[in-house]
Amino acid sequence: MQRGKLVIAQGGGPTAVINQSLVGAVLAARAFPEIEAVYGARHGVSGIVKEDFIDLTRESVTNLEAVAITPSSALGSTRDKPDLAYCRRILAALKAHKVTAFLYIGGNDTSDTMRIVSEEAAKEGYGLCCIHVPKTIDNDLMESDHAPGYPSSARFVAQAFMGADLDNRSLPGVYIAVVMGRHAGFLTAASAAARTREGDGPHLIYLPERVFDTEKFLGDVKTMQERHGRCVIAVSEGIHDADGTPLAVRLAGKAEKDAHGNVQLSGTGALADLLSGEVKAKLGIGRVRGDTFGYLQRSFFGCVSDVDQREAREIGEFAVRQAAGGAKSASIAILRVGDYKAEYRLVDLAKVAGKTKVMADEFIAPAGNDIAPAFLNYVRPLLGSDLPKPARLEGSAVARVMKPA
Amino acid sequence: MQRGKLVIAQGGGPTAVINQSLVGAVLAARAFPEIEAVYGARHGVSGIVKEDFIDLTRESVTNLEAVAITPSSALGSTRDKPDLAYCRRILAALKAHKVTAFLYIGGNDTSDTMRIVSEEAAKEGYGLCCIHVPKTIDNDLMESDHAPGYPSSARFVAQAFMGADLDNRSLPGVYIAVVMGRHAGFLTAASAAARTREGDGPHLIYLPERVFDTEKFLGDVKTMQERHGRCVIAVSEGIHDADGTPLAVRLAGKAEKDAHGNVQLSGTGALADLLSGEVKAKLGIGRVRGDTFGYLQRSFFGCVSDVDQREAREIGEFAVRQAAGGAKSASIAILRVGDYKAEYRLVDLAKVAGKTKVMADEFIAPAGNDIAPAFLNYVRPLLGSDLPKPARLEGSAVARVMKPA
Repeated sequence: MQRGKLVIAQGGGPTAVINQSLVGAVLAARAFPEIEAVYGARHGVSGIVKEDFIDLTRESVTNLEAVAITPSSALGSTRDKPDLAYCRRILAALKAHKVTAFLYIGGNDTSDTMRIVSEEAAKEGYGLCCIHVPKTIDNDLMESDHAPGYPSSARFVAQAFMGADLDNRSLPGVYIAVVMGRHAGFLTAASAAARTREGDGPHLIYLPERVFDTEKFLGDVKTMQERHGRCVIAVSEGIHDADGTPLAVRLAGKAEKDAHGNVQLSGTGALADLLSGEVKAKLGIGRVRGDTFGYLQRSFFGCVSDVDQREAREIGEFAVRQAAGGAKSASIAILRVGDYKAEYRLVDLAKVAGKTKVMADEFIAPAGNDIAPAFLNYVRPLLGSDLPKPARLEGSAVARVMKPA
Repeated sequence: MQRGKLVIAQGGGPTAVINQSLVGAVLAARAFPEIEAVYGARHGVSGIVKEDFIDLTRESVTNLEAVAITPSSALGSTRDKPDLAYCRRILAALKAHKVTAFLYIGGNDTSDTMRIVSEEAAKEGYGLCCIHVPKTIDNDLMESDHAPGYPSSARFVAQAFMGADLDNRSLPGVYIAVVMGRHAGFLTAASAAARTREGDGPHLIYLPERVFDTEKFLGDVKTMQERHGRCVIAVSEGIHDADGTPLAVRLAGKAEKDAHGNVQLSGTGALADLLSGEVKAKLGIGRVRGDTFGYLQRSFFGCVSDVDQREAREIGEFAVRQAAGGAKSASIAILRVGDYKAEYRLVDLAKVAGKTKVMADEFIAPAGNDIAPAFLNYVRPLLGSDLPKPARLEGSAVARVMKPA
């Protein structure tokens, strides 16, 4: 990069480790004299066009480390999806502040913004290195084995299902929990990591990669209820019918859309309530409960994968080292080596921008109501160390002494 | 107690530490030769009348310790609320197995069962010591400063609101989360422990101890939205109108009731959705999200108060020592000494049985939409050590260099 300032911003939904990437970048920048200052843009690109920057150049390391373990975007975030005119305003503000490196931590929409800004900078002949630093709990970024933020949310989902399954075991019935993930089922699939023994829930897992058929769902629940005397179910918020219309949208009537044209799926319990109502009405099962994990799964303060923390930190550092080393604008991909090591490399922004990865067929059970074993091999190394493990009493049954009633 | 067997059972909703009490009792019993065997009844009193016991007398300590840190009733639970005839069947089964001590871990309904069983045993002249070992996340037991299970759920609620507040700060709007607690607001009130700085959420807290007025609620939200540019709200599932009818019940139409005559409030997102809908429609605020913490708050595997763990363990041990030492049937109360130590004592079952404690007026803000500072002094020692603490960037604002648009 040319000598100048570095701007860092955070976009889209927060994660538990998004500040690790921020702090990794801020601290790494201190080793490079060509980086004259590090500015944080408040609320993503909206802060850039408003010139709402804070100076992080001499932020205390103690405070940065405390911020690093705090979930949710410390700089604030935005749902703005800039068009060409907006991107030109971003570039104008960066030029005005003599910014020569721009790091934007976000998902596939964020990478699309970076693609446009970097192209506009090139057209104007302005030396700006744009690095997209990946994060998303949806885990739907192309080119990467996985995305930072996903492992911690996956761990939350696994631990939540461990507890929910134990709860359901103690007071049997049907339990349905709705998990985030509009198009990609990775987060819902992580519920399978809650299973440690035969018979453990979730007994059924429904992913947006497969068409959801309510009649088939009811048949599956009936089968599991007969087999186990109870049934724990993980459902993606993005489950949809054969037309591709999400059930949540059919429910929503006049549905709320964000700037990306996405209908609001989270922040409502309607889907869980709909499915619970169907099970009660059609199967005549008395105790049916529906939960929606909602925002807890991306922002709960106190459930994090140490693998995720380390990788999020490392890609923040990697971004700065690449920018300072003269790299062209790019996104960062995470590759998996063996079982298990992560490696990072730069990839073309266009390969990631605005694209969505979904679960591979090999990760999904043929019946479409569960994951396949290959997914567990994929997800387990990501969940981090010291995942809790449920225990059961082993005591032997006592013989009856009374006459049968 | 007379020489004989000890039966232990778990009733009602599970908690994160209910197995600590179980394991405390099982291990303590090994020190008393007059306790010939320790049986666990499966699914509470329903297991007793079915003679569905498992022998825990020689259960491995290693496994017991693993069970102790596993949330949710390891023996299984029940929602059965025994009447006199049922209690007589319980007594008959205990006599048939030569049981002379009966420990039942549960809430105020459980203590009522113990009252009836102990009275029936006395009438028959059968030497049976019945000890009610308290637990409830609702924290609504008379005679006690607090109930085991509550501190861990309170910690979950506090950590959840810390994360939700950080999430809301990064993407501002209105966020409403519904917390368990039918008649007592202790768990909802624990959300206040998430606040570490001025302006932190939750900005409003609605408890079942006060009448909920939707118009006043909307006015409160409007005020906070104007003050903070966002609003995070904790709402008890038990909020009700001036008639005492819970809002959740008005919504439910033909509501589901359990054996205790309680209408189902948990396991549905309807209340959060109703309140979110009101805020959207009446205040015209675009980004409104509603979560319902549901079963996660009582059974999440990985969020526990170490104070709660220790006390739950200690009352299990205390129950056995008291029974073996010749105590009469009783419930156990937890007293608070100084800031902070817990002490245990036996209290009459009739003082706890079927009664409900609610939050004292001194714990509730006069306006009825927040807690009072005295509540924080009450709850903080219970939450345990190493509660996470959110950090913020301290960087100074950068001066604008562009002309105002």
